[in-house]
Parts: sequence; structure tokens; C-alpha cells
Amino acid sequence: MPGIIEDSPLEIAIVGGGIIGLSLAAGLIKQNVKVKVYEQAKGFREIGAGMAFTANAIRCMGLMNPDIVSALRSGGSVATSMDEDDPNDYLRWIDGYNKRRKDDPSHQTMLFKIDAGYKGFEGTRRDMFLEALVKVIPQEIVELKKRLDTIEEKADGRVQLKFTDGTVAEADAVIGCDGIKSRVRELMFGSDNPASFPHYTHKVAYRALVPMDKAVAALGDYKAHNQHNHVGPNAHLIHYPVANQTMINATAFVSDPNEWPDDKVTVVPGLRSDLEDVFADWNPCLTALIRHFPEKLEKWAVFDTWDFPAPNYNRGAVVLAGDAAHASSPHHGAGACCGIEDALCLVTLVKQVNATLAVQTTTATTTTKTMKKEALAAAFEVFDNVRRTRSQWLVNSSRRVCDLYHQPEWGHPQKWIKAETCFEEIRDRSLKIWHFDYDGMIKDTVDRYAEKMRPKKAALVNGVENGVAGKGKASVVTIPVAIAAN
Amino acid sequence: MPGIIEDSPLEIAIVGGGIIGLSLAAGLIKQNVKVKVYEQAKGFREIGAGMAFTANAIRCMGLMNPDIVSALRSGGSVATSMDEDDPNDYLRWIDGYNKRRKDDPSHQTMLFKIDAGYKGFEGTRRDMFLEALVKVIPQEIVELKKRLDTIEEKADGRVQLKFTDGTVAEADAVIGCDGIKSRVRELMFGSDNPASFPHYTHKVAYRALVPMDKAVAALGDYKAHNQHNHVGPNAHLIHYPVANQTMINATAFVSDPNEWPDDKVTVVPGLRSDLEDVFADWNPCLTALIRHFPEKLEKWAVFDTWDFPAPNYNRGAVVLAGDAAHASSPHHGAGACCGIEDALCLVTLVKQVNATLAVQTTTATTTTKTMKKEALAAAFEVFDNVRRTRSQWLVNSSRRVCDLYHQPEWGHPQKWIKAETCFEEIRDRSLKIWHFDYDGMIKDTVDRYAEKMRPKKAALVNGVENGVAGKGKASVVTIPVAIAAN
Repeated sequence: MPGIIEDSPLEIAIVGGGIIGLSLAAGLIKQNVKVKVYEQAKGFREIGAGMAFTANAIRCMGLMNPDIVSALRSGGSVATSMDEDDPNDYLRWIDGYNKRRKDDPSHQTMLFKIDAGYKGFEGTRRDMFLEALVKVIPQEIVELKKRLDTIEEKADGRVQLKFTDGTVAEADAVIGCDGIKSRVRELMFGSDNPASFPHYTHKVAYRALVPMDKAVAALGDYKAHNQHNHVGPNAHLIHYPVANQTMINATAFVSDPNEWPDDKVTVVPGLRSDLEDVFADWNPCLTALIRHFPEKLEKWAVFDTWDFPAPNYNRGAVVLAGDAAHASSPHHGAGACCGIEDALCLVTLVKQVNATLAVQTTTATTTTKTMKKEALAAAFEVFDNVRRTRSQWLVNSSRRVCDLYHQPEWGHPQKWIKAETCFEEIRDRSLKIWHFDYDGMIKDTVDRYAEKMRPKKAALVNGVENGVAGKGKASVVTIPVAIAAN
Repeated sequence: MPGIIEDSPLEIAIVGGGIIGLSLAAGLIKQNVKVKVYEQAKGFREIGAGMAFTANAIRCMGLMNPDIVSALRSGGSVATSMDEDDPNDYLRWIDGYNKRRKDDPSHQTMLFKIDAGYKGFEGTRRDMFLEALVKVIPQEIVELKKRLDTIEEKADGRVQLKFTDGTVAEADAVIGCDGIKSRVRELMFGSDNPASFPHYTHKVAYRALVPMDKAVAALGDYKAHNQHNHVGPNAHLIHYPVANQTMINATAFVSDPNEWPDDKVTVVPGLRSDLEDVFADWNPCLTALIRHFPEKLEKWAVFDTWDFPAPNYNRGAVVLAGDAAHASSPHHGAGACCGIEDALCLVTLVKQVNATLAVQTTTATTTTKTMKKEALAAAFEVFDNVRRTRSQWLVNSSRRVCDLYHQPEWGHPQKWIKAETCFEEIRDRSLKIWHFDYDGMIKDTVDRYAEKMRPKKAALVNGVENGVAGKGKASVVTIPVAIAAN
């Protein structure tokens, strides 16, 4: 496999074999790094829920390793739209609550529509994608049934992982991709810190698959075959076609002012009748659709890291990525895309660390261990600087758009006008996600790493600052700066 | 004065001689339109409060009439920063509440800083700017002591304005620039519609001027000489130097859960002691600063059009611009800039209407009156389409950033991290204001007007659609579209 370094001296442990962990592994093997993925489950069968990636995130995958994109597409792309006149993908928001035409109680006003372009989204089933991803990486790098217990730095600078089965492993660095309930995050911040755990977003979700003929009967042909997000007071319902337009996947999100105990499981049994009560006054299309949901449903409490975000994503040679670092509610449908951006940033950094170590190896072999530790710590600090702001913005933004979907004003005729002014903001937020400047991120990442390593490298290699200071000097970072004012 | 049309056939009445009304008049005279400005006050003396325009808004002024920019600068630019090492203008947010260093109870953490570039803002005193603006336009076009009573469309398509002094006036079109308490808006929507009136934002403001030596003693040298916004739970305090760095202008905004009667005056007497109570637990710098406020202060209830935005800005040959259309709270400092954008859009449209009428005059003089009415109505509809979304976004955004400044989380050590994640959003919002694509707006405005006029013009001029359809065809506007779904 081609790469800049034929034999990278780096050994990296990835905790968690989800989509981000496996994609990252696929990216790192392209850099010839020795990777191990430790997954607590005994296999990769996940729930068969649909998920979609933006065209932007798919380009990020391709930059790490084109095989990731092939894996994504191996199950066939699942279209979220089927409009004969227009092949582009759109997000559509439609008035789910008000019945603004007396002559047609099923009338719904199309509120807003954003064009995501041709193949703006590519859908897949999570389980199919994972299965294909596993085949992209060598079988021997994945270890199943490894539940992380502790991480400790050893005297020689290496990191030791202990698993609950009593086994241990070692690596130069650990990347926690172990999801919203990340053990790596908990170890980083301690079990008495609320930032170690996700918290309740005060929204519950109910999901159902409805056969297409029934969906068409309830919603009409156009809506059933194309993604729509029905908004209204304190709830919204989003649906899109799946399984080759033979079914629709419908998810209702409902505001819940109550608390959800942190120790309670987040998926509990629910009833269709609960949902019927919530949507009783809504447009008859929706009450008709909900009638086709199964009587017994799963009720899913949505958690995220909004209330207590991680103060930092790195500590020495340990770093968090994906949901482990920043678990978002699903309202932008962009949580996994953001994790892919993280992975691309980490692959970029590991490539830089390889380059640092290659220079180092040819000049002063005795300090390789120290250098490795310094370089990895610098890289992960850069990762934190580059990724934390955007990823925590996404967590906030997902909460915010859900609040806008649930505006109580949708229920008051005199306030509809105000409620409808939300879409400019929703558009801006969507475009910020879709138009992510990954080339800019890569350049910024490389520059910041170089900046951080310059004096240290000089000090280690020559004992004096080398002469190239100033070259490639990063522009002054003005935000955020801590100053001792007054 | 040069212009495309030597003798425009248009007569336009502007209601309100504030900054937007006078700037618009200055722009319209450049298009050789006959303009009259009707101002209810008996003169142009306004309160001497400071205000600042973005570099972007100043470029918009220049496009309408360079004399507006000269008027703005005639009082001398008031710098909001004085940093010897850096001539750029910045917005700075600083932690006003927490005292995070035990060894220094006056320590404040600089939270965020956005670089607005060299002369990113140019400050002025409102009264001085107005005085200079009046001199830009011919004296005879301004009529003082004219308080609008009613507007009526006459049989011949002209619009008649009646004033409370019993006098009447006529014009082809009326532009309401009569501010937050706009009579034109009330006439447009009716006095039983809440969209006719501004509503309480649940924030009160207290403003004071503090001599520089006292400000330096309280805040320290750097903060006193440069703009800073101190944020904390349920309040914020913003200050910047004025009057050639001899004073600082400090404004405290405080959240107020109570109602403010709509019929009550919005400025009432307040006490420094009220403010001392609010800021009692804040950083000692701020309590020291507030001690230099006068004992008796004005308390200003902040109103805006957020709750009940205007459903549209146009009706026939009548249109609203500036605060009359969209009154924003002051937290982006961009309300007047947005009104300037409105004025540029209207000047662009009037130029197009002139061109339509010039063609018309040479082909079918008998229909000039009808054509004038149609063209103005089309122009104002385009204005509504082009301007409403952005300007109502600003109203929303100003409320939103104030909510972020007032996050209760600033008061809870475990939640500081979350509170600080707000700045990415604040940055995006500020840049959306500062980086407004006015060239894009002008192009969009011209295109939309052409699109709207094409069939009508063809029908009127030739009775059949003319052959240039397709040329300059506006791209499909997908948002927002009203569809009869199902």
C-alpha cells in the first residue's frame, strides 16, 4: 500500500469499531501506521437504521482512503427523493400543524426548501456500511469483545490499555472513537465530571417504517416519495423513502419538559397512542400516517453533550473523536459527517507526525521515544484547536434547529409570520455543514502543527532555534485568547 | 446632476426624515426623481448618541450618493479602539461575571475577539450626521412638522397623503422611513394588527458617559480605551471610547421577565442603585465603573418587531424601509446599516422603473399612468422579496446574540464551557452582517424586477410576449414556495 513513510514507527490504538473508528483505521493504514481497533461488541451487526452522508463528508472519506467511499456505496445508494422533474436532493420543511385552507383541511404550506445539489446526500443502512467497512481493513487489526477499563501512561511514554477481560495492550497513542457513552472520555475527565457523560436533550423520538402504498394514501404521492420535515408546536415529524422507495422511514420528535434519569436506558417501550395524542390537532395527513405505525413502538430519549461539552478533546497521547468528543442530537443529520471530518483531521496529523519522525530518525535516534511523545501530544493539541469549535457548534446548532422546528408560535395564527422567519437561519446552518472547507482545514492543521513543532523540534535537534522561524508562520490567532486584563 | 434619466417622471414621497429617509432622498435625487421628505418634528436635532456604521454599509452609501459618506465623515470619525500595536477595529467579548483567578479578583478572561479590519466601523454622533445629511439634499424637498395621518390611493393611481395639520400632498409612491413607531406601517396593516406596532424585547438599557480618567481607574488602560462587551448571567455591559477618547460610552442591558405596557413611554427615569443591584456579584471592575454613572439615569425599554414581524413590506405603491419595516434591538449595532441596504435596494429599483418608463414614453404615452403604477408595484414587490428575509433575520439575530450574552450558564462554573461555545455562532452572525454582498443584491434586484416586468411589459407594449424572454431569466426561486400539497 503506498504512503509517504514505508514503515511508520507509530502504533495507534482506536477504541471503538463504529463508523468513525473503522473509517479512521482505513485512513491510518494508508499512512502505514500500525493500527489496532478495540471493539467491545462481539460483532459488527448494528441496527439497520438509515443514515445519510453529505457529498462533502464523502469527499472527506475519499481523501482518507477511497475504499471508504466504495464501502459506503456497496449497499447501493438510497435516494431520499424521487422527483421526475428534478434529480437534485432537497431538504423540505412543511407546515405540519396548521390547516390554512378551509376548503381543504389536508392542505399543507410548503415553508422552505434547500437544494443540496445532485447526490447532495447519499443514504445507506448503517449495518451494511459497517459490514463493508470491516472488509476494507485487514482482518487482524480488529479485536472484538474488548471493553476498555483503564488507560495509563507508562514510564517509557507508551500508553497501556486495560480491558475488562483482564487483557492489556499498548500503543503510542489512543484515539477514543467509542461513541456517545465513551469510556475514553470518562477516563479523561473523571466520573464526577458531568462532561464525562451525555445529557438529555428533552426530546424523545419514535421511529417507524411504513409501506409505501399506505404512506401514499396518507401523504399523497409527492410527499411520500420525497423527504419532508413537518414542523409544528413542540414536535416535528420527518420522513424519507427507504428500501428502494418501497417504504418510508418516519421519525417523530416530541419535546419533553421532564427529566430523563441518567441511569435509565435511553430506549424504552412506547405506544402509538402516545404519538396519536401528541399529533391529534395536527394536519390530517399526519394523523393518517401515524395510524400506520405499529401499536408498540420504541421510544428513544435523545441525549447529547450540549449541557456539558468536553473542555478539550486531547490529553497527552490520548484524543477523542466523533461522538466520543461531541455527541450531537440528530436534527442536522450531520453527526457522523462531523466525525468523518475529525478522522480526516487526525489522518492529516498522523501523516505530519510520520514526517517529523522520519527526519528525527535520520538525525538523533536516541531521542525517538521522546520525540514521538512530543509530536503526538502536539498533533492532538492541534486536533483540539482545529476541531472543537466546529464540532461543538454542531451540537448547539442541532439543538437550535430542533427548537425552531418546535416553536410554539406554529400553533398561533398571529405568530406564524414570526415562526416562518426562522428559515434564513436554518439555511445558513445547513450550508455551514454542507460547504465545509476541508481543504482549508487540512492546510490549517498542517500549518498549526508546523508552528507548534518548530521551536520544540529546533530545541531537540539542534539545541538552538533553527533559522527558518518566520517561514510559514501562522497568522496571529486572536481567538480565543486568555489575557490578564486590568 | 448626472443620471440615466434627465427628467424622471416619478414623484416619490418619503415619510420620515431620519438617517434612512434622508439617505434614501440623497440616493433618489441622483436618479433625478422628484422627492419630498415629510418629517413630523420641527427640526433635525436628535439625541447626540453615538452610532457606528460598518465599512460595508458605508460602501452601500457611496453607491447611492457619495455625498452621504462625506456627510457621515464630516463630524470626524469616532474611533472605537486605540491600540498602538494594531490599527484594526475589533469586537471583543470579555467575561464580566466570573472571577476565575483567586490571586486577582479583578481578572477577566478575554472570551472572543473578531477582527473587523482597518476602519471596520466608523462611528459618528447621530445628530451631527443628520445635520450634515440635510445639507446634502436641496432644502426645498424637506417639509417639517408634517405628521402623517392617512394614505389613500386616488382614482388616477396616484397616492394622497393627509397630514394631521389638515394639509395634503400627492406622489406616485410613498416610502415609509418613519422608524420603529411607523405610521405608514400602522396604516398598512391596521391598528388591530400586532404587526403594526413594536413589542417589548424584555431587555432594559441604561446608558452613561464616564470621563476617561475614571474609566481607566475602574477598567484599566487597555479596556477603557477599546471597545469591550462584558457578558454574564442575565445582563451585559458594553462600552467604547467616544469624544476623541475623552469619555467612554457605557450601556448596560438587563433581562427583564416582566411585561412593559405598550402604551407606556419607553424611556423612564431609572436609578444607578438599580444597576448596582444587578451587577453586585459581577467583576469588581464593573461595579467600580458603575459607581461613576450618574445617580439618576434614563432607563430605556428595548422594543423591536420580533414577535410580530410585518408579513410584507409593500402594498401597491407604498413600501416600508428601515426600522419602519424591521425594527431591531441594538445588539448587533446594525439596525441602521440594514436600513442603508434597504435604501440602496430602493434606489436600484427606482433606477429600473425610470428605465421602464423611458422606454414606455417613446412607445405608448397614453398608458404611462398605468405603466407607472404597475412598475412601482412590481418594484416594491421585488423590494419585499429581496429585503424581507435578511432584515427579519437581523431582528431575530439581535435577540439571539443578546440571549447568548445573557446565558444563565455564565453564572455556573460547571457550565462556563458550554456558555463559551456560543462564540462560533456569534462570529457567523457578525460576518453575515459585515460581509453583505451588496453587488449580489443589486444584481438580484435588477434580475427580479426584469423577470416581474417581462410579461406585463410585453402585454402592455405589444399585446404579445416579446422575443427576449429567456435572456436574463432569473434562476428558479425554490424558496419559499407555496404548494397545495396532497
